[in-house]
Amino acid sequence: MKKFINHVDDFLAESLAGFAAAHSDLVILNQDPLFVRRKTLKRGKVALISGGGSGHEPLHCGFVGYGMLDAACPGQVFTSPTPDQMLAAAKAADTGAGTLFIVKNYSGDLMNFEMSSEMSELPNAMVLINDDVAVENSSYTTGRRGVAGAVIVEKLVGSLAESGADLEQCKVFGDRINKQTATMGVAFSSCTVPAAGTPTFKIGDDEIEIGVGIHGEPGRRRARHAAADAIAGELLTSIVADVKPKADSQLLVLINGLGGTPLGELYLLFNSTRLWLQQRDFNIARVQVGSLTTSLEMAGASITLCVLDEEMMRHWDSPVHTPSLRWSV
Amino acid sequence: MKKFINHVDDFLAESLAGFAAAHSDLVILNQDPLFVRRKTLKRGKVALISGGGSGHEPLHCGFVGYGMLDAACPGQVFTSPTPDQMLAAAKAADTGAGTLFIVKNYSGDLMNFEMSSEMSELPNAMVLINDDVAVENSSYTTGRRGVAGAVIVEKLVGSLAESGADLEQCKVFGDRINKQTATMGVAFSSCTVPAAGTPTFKIGDDEIEIGVGIHGEPGRRRARHAAADAIAGELLTSIVADVKPKADSQLLVLINGLGGTPLGELYLLFNSTRLWLQQRDFNIARVQVGSLTTSLEMAGASITLCVLDEEMMRHWDSPVHTPSLRWSV
Repeated sequence: MKKFINHVDDFLAESLAGFAAAHSDLVILNQDPLFVRRKTLKRGKVALISGGGSGHEPLHCGFVGYGMLDAACPGQVFTSPTPDQMLAAAKAADTGAGTLFIVKNYSGDLMNFEMSSEMSELPNAMVLINDDVAVENSSYTTGRRGVAGAVIVEKLVGSLAESGADLEQCKVFGDRINKQTATMGVAFSSCTVPAAGTPTFKIGDDEIEIGVGIHGEPGRRRARHAAADAIAGELLTSIVADVKPKADSQLLVLINGLGGTPLGELYLLFNSTRLWLQQRDFNIARVQVGSLTTSLEMAGASITLCVLDEEMMRHWDSPVHTPSLRWSV
Repeated sequence: MKKFINHVDDFLAESLAGFAAAHSDLVILNQDPLFVRRKTLKRGKVALISGGGSGHEPLHCGFVGYGMLDAACPGQVFTSPTPDQMLAAAKAADTGAGTLFIVKNYSGDLMNFEMSSEMSELPNAMVLINDDVAVENSSYTTGRRGVAGAVIVEKLVGSLAESGADLEQCKVFGDRINKQTATMGVAFSSCTVPAAGTPTFKIGDDEIEIGVGIHGEPGRRRARHAAADAIAGELLTSIVADVKPKADSQLLVLINGLGGTPLGELYLLFNSTRLWLQQRDFNIARVQVGSLTTSLEMAGASITLCVLDEEMMRHWDSPVHTPSLRWSV
């Protein structure tokens, strides 16, 4: 296992310490219980709290800031954060308009966020993200997994919350975005969880895992390595069957690297994706290419399509200022 | 070789087509000769042109846009672009204030940019970047290599040019930045050039290459894998010996991933870097963490220190709007 690491037990703490020091203008790191909070809160704004196992950076801590999350709770690598983290984060981010928990659908995350939701004295609601169309149930999941679609939900609901919407409006909007978003990924290599020290799964020199999960969970099938166009076509066929865009739908395309795949390849995958969509007369309205929801150093990528309506497009374009997503109008 | 690729010969063209389509609001791709140009030029501004072999994305094409480059000339993977690309890019980006060529020190790049400089009918000058302190001469280089420091030179000179400085001022500023910038890297794995199909170098499961070049060139030594703190300390010792920051110097720290190393590890490496610097009473004024000058899918990272003066700090902070570096004030 070759990583930038000192001791396995300190990986998360040291990585977060570096993150917080690099972005001290934007975020504050709370040590115990562990969460990252936006430095400057906005009074009367719904607090958006997410979290999950670490190893998916920049998700979620890299999206704490203006226009996205108010706080994020990192668990150990690929391990759910605990209710005390979530409750403390919700309390620390509260400015009087309630808490929206944004949760990727994994059994541990869901259980702990549900417990927090029940225990919290603050008005709260939850948006459950399950955008991964690859498999119905999985190693850590009942129902579909939540993956890179989380970035889109956090950006769009983040913008709505910033505009002064109430808790119910944010919850309804989040559910709608999730429903209009679908993702599927492919792995070329495994990742290695620091505490395990060995690759999560074995994969041959000429094999790929179609539909892989972001913890290395099995996908739909093990296949021979194929051309980018063929891989994109297989992923997109499943994604389009799920979100069913119409001829005049405006699509947001997110090409997401899984950690070990460089940007040049991601742009090539976007090229395959755009040609496939254009051949079928679908409209690409917005594009995001980058490694935003990773699986440690796994080589591979996922494709996400989100069917945008006008409100969603406006909230995608609105200003955002977080460590890993930043733009102005 | 598992990459997102269709045919080896089409890798660059398809990756650039995806890049240009994803960023059509910012850049225009010229097919023949091949270069990427800023969509909107500014009259009377010095045109900043860079380029080099591909495989280092987002360098250089990802830095074409407001506040950085006016055009970039991509060669084939790890292969210098040709003078006709450079001349055409310079002509296409010219708005009457001359051309500044920003060149990483590799023999092929230097030869072709020098030829372009001589052949161009436009007033022009060149800034040669040689920030890599690892080795004095190397596989493709007489003198030191140019690596991630290029990002800093392009950002700072880009900002100065935007402010209306003339060609001579931009050239002098670029040379000064280069002199105050030093980098050293480490590789955990090799990369695989698509046209070669096999890894550029062999490296054992427990080995690292200290001082590696961004084409997989040998560094100073092959070592046993070590703790992040120890690696950071070895790199920083050489870097600090070169740029010799004073007690009151303001440092820009760039932690640059080489392509296959995920963000969580880069933040950990920044943590090691910041502790090392703080123990020696050096001041960190600015931080940038990300994979900005890559070596295809190579796992590893480089550390860059740039000793900022007030003018440089102002130009670092100024607005930038490119595909891969974007902020406002």
